[in-house]
Amino acid sequence: MSAPAPLTAPFDFDVLATAGAARAGVFVTPHGAVETPAFMPVGTLATVKSLDPDELRAAGVEMLLANAYHLSQRPGQALVRDLGGLHRFMGWDRPILTDSGGFQVFSLATLRTVREEGVEFRSHVDGATLHFTPESVMRLERDLGADVIMQFDHVIPGQSEAAAARDASERSLRWLARCRREFARLQEERPTLDAAPLPQALFPILQGGVHAELRREAATAITGMDDWPGFGIGGLSVGEPKPDMYAMLEVVDAALPRGRPRYLMGVGFPEDLVEGVRRGVDLFDCVAPTRMGRNGTVFTADGRLNVKRAELRSDPRPLDPDCGCPTCRRFSRAYLRHLYVTDEMLGMRLLSLHNVHFLVSLMRTARQAVLGGTFDGWSDDWLQRYHSSRPDASR
Amino acid sequence: MSAPAPLTAPFDFDVLATAGAARAGVFVTPHGAVETPAFMPVGTLATVKSLDPDELRAAGVEMLLANAYHLSQRPGQALVRDLGGLHRFMGWDRPILTDSGGFQVFSLATLRTVREEGVEFRSHVDGATLHFTPESVMRLERDLGADVIMQFDHVIPGQSEAAAARDASERSLRWLARCRREFARLQEERPTLDAAPLPQALFPILQGGVHAELRREAATAITGMDDWPGFGIGGLSVGEPKPDMYAMLEVVDAALPRGRPRYLMGVGFPEDLVEGVRRGVDLFDCVAPTRMGRNGTVFTADGRLNVKRAELRSDPRPLDPDCGCPTCRRFSRAYLRHLYVTDEMLGMRLLSLHNVHFLVSLMRTARQAVLGGTFDGWSDDWLQRYHSSRPDASR
Repeated sequence: MSAPAPLTAPFDFDVLATAGAARAGVFVTPHGAVETPAFMPVGTLATVKSLDPDELRAAGVEMLLANAYHLSQRPGQALVRDLGGLHRFMGWDRPILTDSGGFQVFSLATLRTVREEGVEFRSHVDGATLHFTPESVMRLERDLGADVIMQFDHVIPGQSEAAAARDASERSLRWLARCRREFARLQEERPTLDAAPLPQALFPILQGGVHAELRREAATAITGMDDWPGFGIGGLSVGEPKPDMYAMLEVVDAALPRGRPRYLMGVGFPEDLVEGVRRGVDLFDCVAPTRMGRNGTVFTADGRLNVKRAELRSDPRPLDPDCGCPTCRRFSRAYLRHLYVTDEMLGMRLLSLHNVHFLVSLMRTARQAVLGGTFDGWSDDWLQRYHSSRPDASR
Repeated sequence: MSAPAPLTAPFDFDVLATAGAARAGVFVTPHGAVETPAFMPVGTLATVKSLDPDELRAAGVEMLLANAYHLSQRPGQALVRDLGGLHRFMGWDRPILTDSGGFQVFSLATLRTVREEGVEFRSHVDGATLHFTPESVMRLERDLGADVIMQFDHVIPGQSEAAAARDASERSLRWLARCRREFARLQEERPTLDAAPLPQALFPILQGGVHAELRREAATAITGMDDWPGFGIGGLSVGEPKPDMYAMLEVVDAALPRGRPRYLMGVGFPEDLVEGVRRGVDLFDCVAPTRMGRNGTVFTADGRLNVKRAELRSDPRPLDPDCGCPTCRRFSRAYLRHLYVTDEMLGMRLLSLHNVHFLVSLMRTARQAVLGGTFDGWSDDWLQRYHSSRPDASR
């Protein structure tokens, strides 16, 4: 393949090695480098639920996600901006990506009216009437100050018919053009005369549901609009069958430039990460590790394990004997089950930490396999073990 | 004063310096040394609520407390014993003290019947009928395996009349004699032929309510029974006026041998710790720092601060500008308020951690002042600032 144009400094992306569609890369941002493929934990309200930034760093997290919509509601974008932006506010000095709120507007909000101008809806917090437009969302994400910001898009249910999917995808493209203009205007703006420019990268979001042709058309339109620093892949893992998601990833992989990072939004589970890397994805995010941790379920190399199970009551083993996380290094299943069934916060913490560590380590291992030329065999073996084993079986 | 008899190895206690009744000492246990005066956070169910053992260690915690009654209910003493004891179960390799359950039996349980043999009551968890006797509690605390275990005592409300206080105090003395016999028997027992003996220290509990004469009689009876390795002071900070508590501490200080550690049970707040040290107390425990942290209230050198207050919404300062804890080093009042009002677990964690760190540091500072000969002035100044200032005032 021909060498892609370099990204605008301080951003950079290099693919160091490939294995089929899988890539091992480095994505450089104003707050440091991210080795890809990488999993980003979700810090919805400027906190990855129950976890401390120092724990995330120690777990190997290099980049995390926050939700522009949620932060616009609480504590409000002006407050975050006035306190120095998200990095300082939440004590995280590494890269951050903000989701635009598209997903939340179309999943959480009620009484929603979509017009070409934007979306009117009710806040899920206090019922107030809100208006999000491509321009207002760019200003919102500017105020929050993440390294990577996502366009405002029109999100539809995962198995929508082609007509609805086309309508939403085409609206997302028109909104992308407006996001691009407002983003460019904001890049010239300085909050004060002596303020340094705030370097941010705007990622478009590729929609199109489970319709290959729509995905290809969207990719053509998006890549024709600009030389984007990276691409979001939206509208997957939202209820469609897994084979449909994998098929769409293959379509998108072929349609997007190889020299830019691809971010599969809202995904996911360990098996989806491995399948995504196989199909050329570089970045992932999902609330699953923390949400499942709070609900007592953990990932292990042998599949999922529910710590509430009675068999674990006196089990002295770690959650996953192959895991080196602070939870597995120090605590037994019996202790973690005790914490969980007595509603102790430390239990939710330790299970969430294990799950985040698990996904981050999984992506690090996948990267090493790509770099070492063993990715195909490794991913086959990994998927087979994950799908076929029972983590609660004695070994 | 004459040198006291040494404690039985591996226990030891040395008073290194004094300032009036205040003492700076070192209490040595099988799991390491505790510099006194010291505050012990409470890990009711084998977890200091929301905090990780590594955080506690980093905060300078040297010893913590767990509740035998709660652990007997969940997960059960046999499970803890079979998994290697409390230290291994909860991942804490420093000293642990277990409360005997006396306080819980008399505060949480319902349908309680006190007989000379022991107490029959209903479990607060599942309503099951339970019997605690001095002997059964010694076996319970033996199974849990803490370094210091407390006698089973009869606890009464803080302002009970002299007759009720005498009845309970005298029963506690008779129960102490039974605890002592069962403890001695258990010290000879080995779970298996090749098992090492489990070194534990049994502390009596000095009761007597707010009645100086009862306190003196109890001290005489207890010290006449054995050369105890340390003393619990019970039945204070349970509703009586503060001057009554301080007066009782002065009575107890005069009545107990100076060469043994004194542990004021269930106390407390920062001002109570300083007042306690002034009156010869070496060890304290209380759920206050974690319970208040979960409720959004923190200690500062200028008094208590409620993080929910609207004025803190955009306050960029740390909770306590003089505090070096991980919360104050990294996060603003504005961020902590945001976490608290959005019910984020990290908020409760960070506030609990600050409060624990505050009390541990306060005791370390008091110790340094005793060692450096500045304790009287330091404690006067500290109490005056704590009582007179407003932490939410701009400075």
